[in-house]
Amino acid sequence: MSKMKGLAMLGFDTIGWIEKDIPKAGPMDAICKPIAISPCTSDVHTVWEKALGERHDMILGHEASAEVVEVGSLVKDFKAGDKVIIPAITPDWETVESQSGYSQHSGGMLNGWKFSNMKDGTFAEYFHVNQADGNLAHLPDEIDVEDAVMLSDMVPTGFHGANNAEVEYGDTVVVIGIGPVGLMAVAGSVLRGAGRVFGVGSRKKCQEVAKFYGATDLINYRDGDIVDQIRDAMNGKPVDKVILAGGGLETFDQAVRMVKPGGIVSNINYLGTGDYIKIPRVEWGLGMGHIRVTGGLMPGGRKNMEFLSRVIKNGRLDVSPMLTHRFSKLEDLEEALLLMKDKPKDLIKPVVLVG
Amino acid sequence: MSKMKGLAMLGFDTIGWIEKDIPKAGPMDAICKPIAISPCTSDVHTVWEKALGERHDMILGHEASAEVVEVGSLVKDFKAGDKVIIPAITPDWETVESQSGYSQHSGGMLNGWKFSNMKDGTFAEYFHVNQADGNLAHLPDEIDVEDAVMLSDMVPTGFHGANNAEVEYGDTVVVIGIGPVGLMAVAGSVLRGAGRVFGVGSRKKCQEVAKFYGATDLINYRDGDIVDQIRDAMNGKPVDKVILAGGGLETFDQAVRMVKPGGIVSNINYLGTGDYIKIPRVEWGLGMGHIRVTGGLMPGGRKNMEFLSRVIKNGRLDVSPMLTHRFSKLEDLEEALLLMKDKPKDLIKPVVLVG
Amino acid sequence: MSKMKGLAMLGFDTIGWIEKDIPKAGPMDAICKPIAISPCTSDVHTVWEKALGERHDMILGHEASAEVVEVGSLVKDFKAGDKVIIPAITPDWETVESQSGYSQHSGGMLNGWKFSNMKDGTFAEYFHVNQADGNLAHLPDEIDVEDAVMLSDMVPTGFHGANNAEVEYGDTVVVIGIGPVGLMAVAGSVLRGAGRVFGVGSRKKCQEVAKFYGATDLINYRDGDIVDQIRDAMNGKPVDKVILAGGGLETFDQAVRMVKPGGIVSNINYLGTGDYIKIPRVEWGLGMGHIRVTGGLMPGGRKNMEFLSRVIKNGRLDVSPMLTHRFSKLEDLEEALLLMKDKPKDLIKPVVLVG
Amino acid sequence: MSKMKGLAMLGFDTIGWIEKDIPKAGPMDAICKPIAISPCTSDVHTVWEKALGERHDMILGHEASAEVVEVGSLVKDFKAGDKVIIPAITPDWETVESQSGYSQHSGGMLNGWKFSNMKDGTFAEYFHVNQADGNLAHLPDEIDVEDAVMLSDMVPTGFHGANNAEVEYGDTVVVIGIGPVGLMAVAGSVLRGAGRVFGVGSRKKCQEVAKFYGATDLINYRDGDIVDQIRDAMNGKPVDKVILAGGGLETFDQAVRMVKPGGIVSNINYLGTGDYIKIPRVEWGLGMGHIRVTGGLMPGGRKNMEFLSRVIKNGRLDVSPMLTHRFSKLEDLEEALLLMKDKPKDLIKPVVLVG
Repeated sequence: MSKMKGLAMLGFDTIGWIEKDIPKAGPMDAICKPIAISPCTSDVHTVWEKALGERHDMILGHEASAEVVEVGSLVKDFKAGDKVIIPAITPDWETVESQSGYSQHSGGMLNGWKFSNMKDGTFAEYFHVNQADGNLAHLPDEIDVEDAVMLSDMVPTGFHGANNAEVEYGDTVVVIGIGPVGLMAVAGSVLRGAGRVFGVGSRKKCQEVAKFYGATDLINYRDGDIVDQIRDAMNGKPVDKVILAGGGLETFDQAVRMVKPGGIVSNINYLGTGDYIKIPRVEWGLGMGHIRVTGGLMPGGRKNMEFLSRVIKNGRLDVSPMLTHRFSKLEDLEEALLLMKDKPKDLIKPVVLVG
Repeated sequence: MSKMKGLAMLGFDTIGWIEKDIPKAGPMDAICKPIAISPCTSDVHTVWEKALGERHDMILGHEASAEVVEVGSLVKDFKAGDKVIIPAITPDWETVESQSGYSQHSGGMLNGWKFSNMKDGTFAEYFHVNQADGNLAHLPDEIDVEDAVMLSDMVPTGFHGANNAEVEYGDTVVVIGIGPVGLMAVAGSVLRGAGRVFGVGSRKKCQEVAKFYGATDLINYRDGDIVDQIRDAMNGKPVDKVILAGGGLETFDQAVRMVKPGGIVSNINYLGTGDYIKIPRVEWGLGMGHIRVTGGLMPGGRKNMEFLSRVIKNGRLDVSPMLTHRFSKLEDLEEALLLMKDKPKDLIKPVVLVG
Repeated sequence: MSKMKGLAMLGFDTIGWIEKDIPKAGPMDAICKPIAISPCTSDVHTVWEKALGERHDMILGHEASAEVVEVGSLVKDFKAGDKVIIPAITPDWETVESQSGYSQHSGGMLNGWKFSNMKDGTFAEYFHVNQADGNLAHLPDEIDVEDAVMLSDMVPTGFHGANNAEVEYGDTVVVIGIGPVGLMAVAGSVLRGAGRVFGVGSRKKCQEVAKFYGATDLINYRDGDIVDQIRDAMNGKPVDKVILAGGGLETFDQAVRMVKPGGIVSNINYLGTGDYIKIPRVEWGLGMGHIRVTGGLMPGGRKNMEFLSRVIKNGRLDVSPMLTHRFSKLEDLEEALLLMKDKPKDLIKPVVLVG
Repeated sequence: MSKMKGLAMLGFDTIGWIEKDIPKAGPMDAICKPIAISPCTSDVHTVWEKALGERHDMILGHEASAEVVEVGSLVKDFKAGDKVIIPAITPDWETVESQSGYSQHSGGMLNGWKFSNMKDGTFAEYFHVNQADGNLAHLPDEIDVEDAVMLSDMVPTGFHGANNAEVEYGDTVVVIGIGPVGLMAVAGSVLRGAGRVFGVGSRKKCQEVAKFYGATDLINYRDGDIVDQIRDAMNGKPVDKVILAGGGLETFDQAVRMVKPGGIVSNINYLGTGDYIKIPRVEWGLGMGHIRVTGGLMPGGRKNMEFLSRVIKNGRLDVSPMLTHRFSKLEDLEEALLLMKDKPKDLIKPVVLVG
């Protein structure tokens, strides 16, 4: 009974089911059993785009709701049987970086990201959570176990984009990329009081859901240069904020060209390839335009999970339109992951109910 | 043709229609003709509660939508015929206070408040606006002229309460007082991402509209101590933020008793009488609890009007449920003002269409 | 060899040397042996003013530099023999409060304060530090072991007062109370760019050292009302910020009367007695003056110790003028503590070299 | 008597003395007569590097202390005979940009910069100041008229770099470029509490003055790659903040490579040529490293001048070591400007006493 199976990256371009020992909890840790799981585009990056470098037999996945099965001797607030929300990012809270407000980088750049990066992830019968009191949150009864999976990464990442953009009442916000993260950036912008919100994307399903979350204008890059399209819609005026949830390195150039002096370009897009982001000198005000360019990994941990779950619990956000594809057993994870890789037209996020 | 009539405070406890010269515009100023006007509880404070001290023959009112009839020679962005939003607060923008981010206090404490305080107000056939380019905003076609009056004071004051409370995603917010300002504090909290929102008030109509704006819990002080009621509802836990939009000096004591270490008490209530606000030492953490107590007059000026109007224009906020009583000619202002004084059960705000 | 002695509060009004078991380290903790120790006015409050309530045989003290003698199995960055700085506040870093930026209140109001409050303190041969990786900092070679004791509480508390006051370049700051904490608030204000700095206090020695740290004006409350004195010195203008490092509940009234609209009153004074802080309604702008009243316990933990030690190490701050009385063995702690109780004219802080 | 002479850009690469009408004050404006003037590297950019595009017969200069000779009818706080500080940036305070906290961009990107850009500058017998109440500050008696010229641009630009870098107590700051602006960034960082400060530059005189202002480490790019040199000095650790006060577009790459996750790169360098700033993807944390890249023109206006003058007046900052070359009549301006163009070894800033 000490073995479990999990869906792993066997090496670049290959995934497969493997058997591993069930992990053990240190004094501050917990062992969890997933209830619902969702694969993420990052898993695709990791396996097929070599984003993190080589990994062998590493169990994938960083999104899940779960049940606690074991806790370490020093864990105070969780016990076996508790239903919990799992953040994709599980920092070491005692580090100087966490104390400085950047727990995502606890112990080094991006080192708060442990699942399916520095250790096995959630695509398994069991998984390990470091510092359980700091990194788990109780799942409120009012939140569906499948919806809860969106709290692992999609909601906090999208909302972090809006937070870093410092969206204010009435701001005009452009969200470039309206996949699941971009959609949550739209919702997060609206929930910070944005006025007009442009959603930039080409897929019909995503456009439809972007409208649901409050996008007022939809821009399709296939219809022409997006800077021109947005400038026209704005009668030549710049926008207040841009959130990058898609595109590539070149998208920063477009973002800077559309934002006002004093505006913010906030990236939440994992930039997988290329050497340099390029900021256009003249439009950046010759270095003096107060256009802030920033980007950040979502904050993980218990506090963020608790607060974001209250947004759902109190009816401010409905994540169910995100869950376009539903599966019902652990084995379906493979199909669900391949869906994320192939991105069929009608996909936003698949979710696999396993518990 | 150089005379106009207006509804004035003749002296303490007395109002009446008077005739005055139509005001003239200096080089940066504008003269406006109201389209829609709303009286405010502050007008009641001024006349019947001696809040500002004695005034003779001062035309009342600081809420209106209007049409520009004349502009000074240096005004660039407005011209006669333009329909405009009028902020209750019209700062002198070149002052050190405005440059420091506190335009409300341009030239001295509360000195950005000019209408029906330092000069004649909006309850007249014409009124004067200082620094038109800085203090008017174009009324978007999409916004109703009566709704627009809510942008003068109710929306910006309520939203300022939420801004000063630094409401974040998922925050639990208590709004004490759910008259029109408190209702806009509820709406403003929800539009900054609040989770649970307690609305404290006793009038049925206000409770109903508080629900409409997103209050999740209604607390009636007639049902017992509000601190106890809220603590019970929270299972003994403190709330994140408290916004004071009603009550008196003693309400700060209650607010501090219910808020968490690191929380904020944000006042937007005009405190008309009494000597001292009292902060309880022990619950304030013996001076070390990081409970911030603050309070502030709404920010006026064009920028705030433009941004808040975008909130309405893009469908994020519907102010029409606030307008419970409607009138159709200037003369009705007197009745509308007396309504604010008498506060019948079903009143939130009256509006008078005069244009 | 498992016993140690320490100077304890035996009960209200009584101190004495007692023998206790040497504490043991949990997996994340450390056991330290003090090198230099300083008593604090808080110790006096605790024993003789009943500030924290009854305590029996609780070892006093929360300021020390030390040598690590033992670490738990999970401690990564410290080992026996390391010389360390000890913060007075040692939070539990995984808590929601710490994740929210208020580690001082980890687990509840003021609960980050453990030494000589929730457990034995530093006045002993050995003491226990929770979460060593998060709560110790390596003592740089360049910093004297006696000077380092000022990093436990005096420097971080005074500087926290300046941080909460958000002192900016050129600000006029009033520091009320120029005992050791107030002196560090003066130094901290100057190191955030303050222009004019008023130090309010009556003791000659403190005034002299306040000048050393950059106070430009000294105000003695024995020479008349301090609000009047400061207003006169300012030609009737308000000051930008007030830091309270002394006085009592009534001092907030004075502070609000001297500060500008948009200004901040920042308390770092432990308020030991009385029921209510009183904020004057009219001078507080009738609730709308944007005068923020706040107060907070110093942030503890490793990051703050590391950053503040760099201020000393790089020559920006010289704490040695604070150390007016020096002792050389553990037994002298009793005399040193009584000095803090009796406050002779020439005292700022005593320090006891024990290592 | 209505004519004056001034030193003008006649066209690209050519300067010369011309005669023009003495400017006239609008109702809010002032006419000033310089007392002391300093040329700036920006003047060199304008004439010889075509930075702003073609200009004909535009009087140069944006740094001066002056005497008011005439004010408009609506000016309240200044009168003929007043000695004043002149900020290089003189915004239109009623604009939406100014109300949003970005007065530098009042009316459009960089449009707060009027002197020797959008109108004649300070290199003349008289010059015009828009919105005198908002853009002049009284010169305190305690400040020397030549020192005061450093308040026009050098002090506010350098200090703005430190403000945008959000320098905190103990921060390790790298200032790249230690010409006059970089030197003020060093001083401004120290006055915000920086611990270790690296000054990057090659000129001996500048290095010497950087030490005076508190640089702890001097790095010469002639001794090898500056990223390597600083990393070595830091034992491989990243720095907290980087301020760019020199270099070119490629310097951003270096800055990002040396700063920590959560750190800030703050540009105050006028970027005169090239197409793109390049941000290295991997070191920028794949877009998720929370490294903020920003840059901004100094804030002008009265408030900033008043507050910065208090820094000098109260002895926190001594600008006199900046003034390496002194001249004594208007005609010397040409030689002073050519000095800025030729940058002899011992030059920091020349100043011309003309009043």
